[in-house]
Amino acid sequence: MDKEHNFISENKRWKRKVFRIIFKSDTRLGKLFDLTLLTLILLSTFIVMMESVKIYDAKLHRLFVILEIIITAFFTVEYVLRIITIRNRRAYIFSFFGIIDFLAILPFYLSLFFPITKYFLIIRMLRMLRIFRILNLLDFMHDGTFIVRALKNSSRKIYIFLLFLVIFSVIVGSLMFMVEGHRPGFESIPQSIYWAVVTVTTVGYGDVSPATPLGKFLSVLLMLAGYSIIAVPTGIVTAEMRNKRQNLEKVCNRCGNEDIDDDARYCKICGEKVV
Amino acid sequence: MDKEHNFISENKRWKRKVFRIIFKSDTRLGKLFDLTLLTLILLSTFIVMMESVKIYDAKLHRLFVILEIIITAFFTVEYVLRIITIRNRRAYIFSFFGIIDFLAILPFYLSLFFPITKYFLIIRMLRMLRIFRILNLLDFMHDGTFIVRALKNSSRKIYIFLLFLVIFSVIVGSLMFMVEGHRPGFESIPQSIYWAVVTVTTVGYGDVSPATPLGKFLSVLLMLAGYSIIAVPTGIVTAEMRNKRQNLEKVCNRCGNEDIDDDARYCKICGEKVV
Amino acid sequence: MDKEHNFISENKRWKRKVFRIIFKSDTRLGKLFDLTLLTLILLSTFIVMMESVKIYDAKLHRLFVILEIIITAFFTVEYVLRIITIRNRRAYIFSFFGIIDFLAILPFYLSLFFPITKYFLIIRMLRMLRIFRILNLLDFMHDGTFIVRALKNSSRKIYIFLLFLVIFSVIVGSLMFMVEGHRPGFESIPQSIYWAVVTVTTVGYGDVSPATPLGKFLSVLLMLAGYSIIAVPTGIVTAEMRNKRQNLEKVCNRCGNEDIDDDARYCKICGEKVV
Amino acid sequence: MDKEHNFISENKRWKRKVFRIIFKSDTRLGKLFDLTLLTLILLSTFIVMMESVKIYDAKLHRLFVILEIIITAFFTVEYVLRIITIRNRRAYIFSFFGIIDFLAILPFYLSLFFPITKYFLIIRMLRMLRIFRILNLLDFMHDGTFIVRALKNSSRKIYIFLLFLVIFSVIVGSLMFMVEGHRPGFESIPQSIYWAVVTVTTVGYGDVSPATPLGKFLSVLLMLAGYSIIAVPTGIVTAEMRNKRQNLEKVCNRCGNEDIDDDARYCKICGEKVV
Repeated sequence: MDKEHNFISENKRWKRKVFRIIFKSDTRLGKLFDLTLLTLILLSTFIVMMESVKIYDAKLHRLFVILEIIITAFFTVEYVLRIITIRNRRAYIFSFFGIIDFLAILPFYLSLFFPITKYFLIIRMLRMLRIFRILNLLDFMHDGTFIVRALKNSSRKIYIFLLFLVIFSVIVGSLMFMVEGHRPGFESIPQSIYWAVVTVTTVGYGDVSPATPLGKFLSVLLMLAGYSIIAVPTGIVTAEMRNKRQNLEKVCNRCGNEDIDDDARYCKICGEKVV
Repeated sequence: MDKEHNFISENKRWKRKVFRIIFKSDTRLGKLFDLTLLTLILLSTFIVMMESVKIYDAKLHRLFVILEIIITAFFTVEYVLRIITIRNRRAYIFSFFGIIDFLAILPFYLSLFFPITKYFLIIRMLRMLRIFRILNLLDFMHDGTFIVRALKNSSRKIYIFLLFLVIFSVIVGSLMFMVEGHRPGFESIPQSIYWAVVTVTTVGYGDVSPATPLGKFLSVLLMLAGYSIIAVPTGIVTAEMRNKRQNLEKVCNRCGNEDIDDDARYCKICGEKVV
Repeated sequence: MDKEHNFISENKRWKRKVFRIIFKSDTRLGKLFDLTLLTLILLSTFIVMMESVKIYDAKLHRLFVILEIIITAFFTVEYVLRIITIRNRRAYIFSFFGIIDFLAILPFYLSLFFPITKYFLIIRMLRMLRIFRILNLLDFMHDGTFIVRALKNSSRKIYIFLLFLVIFSVIVGSLMFMVEGHRPGFESIPQSIYWAVVTVTTVGYGDVSPATPLGKFLSVLLMLAGYSIIAVPTGIVTAEMRNKRQNLEKVCNRCGNEDIDDDARYCKICGEKVV
Repeated sequence: MDKEHNFISENKRWKRKVFRIIFKSDTRLGKLFDLTLLTLILLSTFIVMMESVKIYDAKLHRLFVILEIIITAFFTVEYVLRIITIRNRRAYIFSFFGIIDFLAILPFYLSLFFPITKYFLIIRMLRMLRIFRILNLLDFMHDGTFIVRALKNSSRKIYIFLLFLVIFSVIVGSLMFMVEGHRPGFESIPQSIYWAVVTVTTVGYGDVSPATPLGKFLSVLLMLAGYSIIAVPTGIVTAEMRNKRQNLEKVCNRCGNEDIDDDARYCKICGEKVV
C-alpha cells in the first residue's frame, strides 16, 4: 500500500511536472518546449506551402511526407499529454485552442483512411493559430489583447458600417449593371457588385473597369466615397482605443474598484484618492 | 347601436393590434413579422441578382416570377395595412421609409402596364434600405445612429475636402493630358481626370497608367499626395467621434471635469461627489 | 468746382458701390454677381474639358470659341473693375487671388498673338481656384480654413514623413531592380522606384508587378509596410485636428486672451473665469 | 619643447576647428559643409539611378564614372577626417551613421579589386540615409523624432497586428488555393498568399484576380476586412501620438489637470496658479 501510494504520488508529481512544461513557460524546459512547438508549427506550415508548389513537390515529396509524420507524431504526443495532465479535461478539449490542437493532428489520421483531398489543407493551416497560444505564454500578447478588445468593443459599430457598405455596394452595383449594359465585367448584378466592392474599398484590381463615360463618372463618385468613408472604421477604432486605459494595475484601496482611468486622481466610485 | 359601437371598438382594437405587430417589435408576433419581412427582403434582393445572371434566369425564370409575385403581394398587403393602421397617414406616406415601402411594390405593378425595362431593377434594389428600419426596431441601430450623426456633423468639412480634391484632380488631370499627349487613357481631359481620381484615391485600376517618364514622375507625386491627404477625412471623422461623449450632461461642480462615466459617483479628478 | 466735387464724390460713391458688389456678398447684387461668376467659372472649365474631347470639338468648336470670348470678356471687365475700385491696388494684384484672376484672362489674349499651345490649357484650368474665393465670400470656408490650418500645422511632420517614404521607396526600388533583374517594368532604377511608390501607397496599378518569387516576397513586405505606415500621416493630422479648438468666439474678458480651449473654465493667462 | 607644445596645441586647435565644421552646423563653414555634403549625396544617388537607365549609361558612362570618383574621394576624405577629429573613435565607427559613412565609400574600393556586381548598387543607395544626419544638424528632425518615437512606442502593437494579418493572409490564401483550384495566379499556396496580401492591403495590382464566383465572393469578404482593419494600425499610432504631450511635467496642484499649455500661468480648469 505504501508502494502504491508512492506510485500515485510519483504519478501525480510526474503529471504536475509535465503539465508545467506544456501549459506554462516559467521553467527552462517549458520555454524550450514552447520554442520547439513554435519551430514545428512554422515548419509544418512551410511544408504545406511547399507541397503546393509543383516543382518542389515533385522533387521532395518523400521528405515532406516523412517530416509530416514526425511533426504529427510530436503533435499527437503533445495532445495526449495535454489531456492526461490537465485537470479539467472537458474544458480543455472544447476550448478554442483544444479544438485547434485536435484539428492540427486530425488531417493526417483521416488521410490514412480516406483519399487525401485538398480540403485537408486548410485544416492543417489552422495550426498556425497555435502560435498565438505560445505568444500568450511568452507574455507577448498583452498588446494583442489590447487590439482584440478594442476591435470587440467597436465590433457592433463596425458591423453596422459594413452593412451600410454592403447595401451601398449592392445598390451601386445594380446601378452600374444598368449603366454599363452587359459589357465585360458587368454581365450580371453579382459581377457588378464585385466591381463595386473592389472600387469602394480602393483595392482596384482593374480586372473590371468601366468603359462608358457615364460609368466612369459613377466610378469617380464611388471612389471619392470610398476614399472618404474609410474614415468611419478608422474613427471608430481610434475612439475606442483612446478609451482603453492602459493602467490595468491601479485598484482603489478602499472599495476595490478596478475601473480606474489613467488620468484619475480619485476613485470615481468611493472618492478615495488613488496613488 | 350597441352592436355598432362594439363593432367600432372591435375595429379599433384590431387596428391597434396590427399596428403593434407591423410598426413595433415588442411582441412575439411583431418580432416574427419583422423576421419574415427581413427574409423576404433578402430573398427579393437575391432574386433580382439571380435574374441578372443569364444561366440562372434561363433555367429558373418562371420560379423567379412566381416568387416575385408572392413577395410583392406580401409587400402590398403590408403597405396597405401600414396606411390603414397608422394615425398620421400623410406623415408616413411621405416619410423616407414610406416612400421606400411604396417603391418596393411599384415596379411590379408598373411592369403590368409597361414593358419591363432595366430601370425597374434599381428601384427593386432600394428595397434593401428597408433592412435599416427592421434593425432600428430590433434596437440594433443605436450604433448606426452614432455613425450617421458623426458623418452628418462632419459632412460640411468633408464636402469642402471633396471639393478641394475634385478641383485638385481636375487640375492634375489637365496637366497629365498635356504631359501624356494623346496616349491611350489620356485622350481627353475628362479621361485624364478619371485617371487622376483613380490614382489619388489609391484605387489604381491600372486600366489607365502613365507611359512617359515625366508622366510617371507626376503620378508618383499624385500618389504620395493621395496617400497623405487621406488623413484629412479620417482626422475629421475621428475628431467628431471623439467629441461624442455618452453622458454629455454630467459635469463636476468643483473642478468642471466633463469626462464623467455613467457609473461614477465621485469626480475622478478632484474627488467631489457628482450628482 | 462744386460740380467737380460732385463728380468726384459721385465717382467715389460709384466705386464704393461696385467694390461692394464685386468684393463682398452682403448685398443682393453682390450675391447675384458671385453666383454669375461661379456659373461662368464652371462653364469655362466645362468648355476646356469638352474642347479636349475630339468628337465634341469637331462638332461644336465654333460654339466653344464664342463662349470662351464672352466669358473672357466678362472676366476681363471684372478684373479691370477690381483694380479700379480697390484702394490697395498693389496688394490685390500680387495677392494669390489677384494672380489667379490675371491668369484667368491671360491665355485668351496670349492666343491672339501666339499660336495656341496645349500649355494654355492648364492655366485656364487654374480658374477653378477662384471658386474658393466665392465660397469664402459665401461664408462656406470656415471649415475649409479649419482643414487648411490643420494641414499647415502638421505640414513639417508630413514633409519629414514623405521624405522618409521617398528615401525608403528609392532603397526598396533599387533592391527590386537587383532582384527582378531587367524584367518588364524593372528595366531601370527609376522604373523600379515608380513601382515601389505605386505599391507602398497601396495604389497598385498593376502595370508593373513582380514576377519572381523573391520579388513577390519583397512586394508583400512592402505592401504590409505601406498598409501600416499610412497610420503616420493619419495620426499626425488627427492629433492636430484634435488640438484645434473650435470655439473661436471665446475671449477672456479681463486680459483679452483669445487662445481659449473648448474645455477651459478659467483663462490660462490671468485666471479669470470664462463663460 | 615649446615648439612641440605649440605644434600639439596647433594640431588640437585644427582638429577642434575641423570637428566643428564636420560634426556641427553652427558655423558658416559648417553649414556650407553640410550643404555640399547634401548636394553630393543627392548627386551620387542621381548618378546611380541614371547609370541603371541604358540609354543614359550608353551616352554618359564616362562622366558617371568620373563623378563617382570625385564624390567618393570627397566622402573618403570626409570619413577619414571624421575619424581623426572625433574623440571617441570606436563609438563613431560602430554607430549607425558611422557604418553608413563607411558603406558610402566601400563599394568603390571593392570595385577596384572585384568585378562590379549589381549588389554594390543597393549599398550605394544607402548613402541616402545620410540625409537624415544633415537634417538632424539643421534642426529639422525634431518632428522626425516625434514620428519615430510614436512608431517605436507602438511598434509592439503593430508587430502583433502584422502577425495577425500575416497568419490571416496565409489561411485565406490557402482557402483561395482550394477554391480557385489551379487557375492562373493561384497555382500554389505561396502564390495565393501573395494574392491575399495584395488584396487585404487594398493594393490590388490585378495581376492575379479571382475567376470563379465563389472566389470572387471570398475576395469581397477579404476586401471588406482589409478596408476595415486598416483602422487598427491607424488607431494605434493615433492614440500613441495623442499621448505625447509637449509639456509632460506640468500638473495643476489643485485639480490635477495635466493638459497645461506652455504659456499657461493659470490652470484652465480650476483657475489655480501653475508654476
